[in-house]
Amino acid sequence: MFEIGRKYEISSLTNEKVKFINSLSQRKYRRETNLFVAEGVRICKEALENGWEIKYLLFDKSNKQNLIIENLINQALSLGSDVVGVTSDILTKISHKENPQNVLGVFVQRWSKLPKAINVETFVALECIRDPGNLGTILRTMDGVGATNCILLNECTDPFSYEAVRASMGAIFNVKVIASTNEKFFEWKKNNKISFIGTSLSNAVNYTKTDWKLPFVLLMGNEQNGLSNKVLNQCDQLIKMPMLGKSDSLNLAVSAGIALYESIRKNPK
Amino acid sequence: MFEIGRKYEISSLTNEKVKFINSLSQRKYRRETNLFVAEGVRICKEALENGWEIKYLLFDKSNKQNLIIENLINQALSLGSDVVGVTSDILTKISHKENPQNVLGVFVQRWSKLPKAINVETFVALECIRDPGNLGTILRTMDGVGATNCILLNECTDPFSYEAVRASMGAIFNVKVIASTNEKFFEWKKNNKISFIGTSLSNAVNYTKTDWKLPFVLLMGNEQNGLSNKVLNQCDQLIKMPMLGKSDSLNLAVSAGIALYESIRKNPK
Repeated sequence: MFEIGRKYEISSLTNEKVKFINSLSQRKYRRETNLFVAEGVRICKEALENGWEIKYLLFDKSNKQNLIIENLINQALSLGSDVVGVTSDILTKISHKENPQNVLGVFVQRWSKLPKAINVETFVALECIRDPGNLGTILRTMDGVGATNCILLNECTDPFSYEAVRASMGAIFNVKVIASTNEKFFEWKKNNKISFIGTSLSNAVNYTKTDWKLPFVLLMGNEQNGLSNKVLNQCDQLIKMPMLGKSDSLNLAVSAGIALYESIRKNPK
Repeated sequence: MFEIGRKYEISSLTNEKVKFINSLSQRKYRRETNLFVAEGVRICKEALENGWEIKYLLFDKSNKQNLIIENLINQALSLGSDVVGVTSDILTKISHKENPQNVLGVFVQRWSKLPKAINVETFVALECIRDPGNLGTILRTMDGVGATNCILLNECTDPFSYEAVRASMGAIFNVKVIASTNEKFFEWKKNNKISFIGTSLSNAVNYTKTDWKLPFVLLMGNEQNGLSNKVLNQCDQLIKMPMLGKSDSLNLAVSAGIALYESIRKNPK
């Protein structure tokens, strides 16, 4: 690894650090390093305010810096991060976007555990979901309703991928992500007497008729197949949304949004 | 253009028809030809059942055909479409996906006009939205609530792009899309005395307190900037969703879903 806590510049697309950071677009390297990339001044600022550990802060050295970026640079340096002025070509390469943000941070991933004690709160559990945009959008909606624990069951898409982080619009820094197996999750349910509310196209009641009493876990399954039978069997209630047209289902993140907003309507703060 | 209504095979990636169909991934060529691509047996079947005009049906000639695909082939031939057995390489090239569907149709786009007479119904108007996934997802949700007219104001992302068609999950064949300018749209409002309900982060009331009396248009704006002032000024009501966390807004398609499902709750069928 490289030294940290210094300010310097890089202009070459083939620089080793550029290659290293660029490799974080692959899940394999994110797993090996436990790092990930987040883009944009507002989001990097929010990450630091929430105490996330930063390793690199990259900014476009050709841009005139404004006060917000200067503050961010100073904050990152004080936290021991490398702060690197780079060309816009380098930012384009790393962000895989034609119009990249002018700031990009490399942060240490944070994975939480199933909490030992639970309060009167909302959990979301996602089983084998595949689309990073859906996952990021669900994290964003969870933040919207003040739900702070997202449980990823079995093999889900990576919440720290570029696309999931982007779609979360910073919510990845506010919502805890927890990886769990079915077995641990079912055991945790038993120990905590928490209600499981699953989505299902059959044998389900209208989401407006559901008992949304807190605490509960909203469970949603894979985009193609929904929840597995193993998980469905653990649910105390199954819910669905009315489908009045020809489609038989909604987008996963849209369903999650409708259910979560129904739950806060039934549990006003 | 090419002759239609015949069944034949193509194996070369550089065949002129393959190039032609592949060019439909670009908006420019979709505009010039008024054609677009939809993938998947279920979706192509639905398109034909709804009377959409098909020009080409491509299927993977190396796969053993099942009854559903055979029926689709016969139906397309009877409608005068070219039916082309191709290699999986060709399907991969045209679909821009590693695991393409085994059937792909080239259809004629359909653009509708603002209806002269309106019923007790739900319209959605989108101003300058940019993300094809959001547009497709909103069409899918509209179908879910039985809303059949989507008005695209000014320059929106193309509803007939691969990504929008995919995200719509076939709803593009059930929901009418209408392109309009602000001026025509405002004139249409005046003539039809239809209520405009816009989403806004400020000066808005909770979506659960809104008067969802039919007919109405739900108006939503660009992902970054929301509705323009011109459009906001035409709205009879402005709505918002409560935001209980740090995020200041929801994903556009999620907001649309929450609003549309609220509207059917207030207007049970």
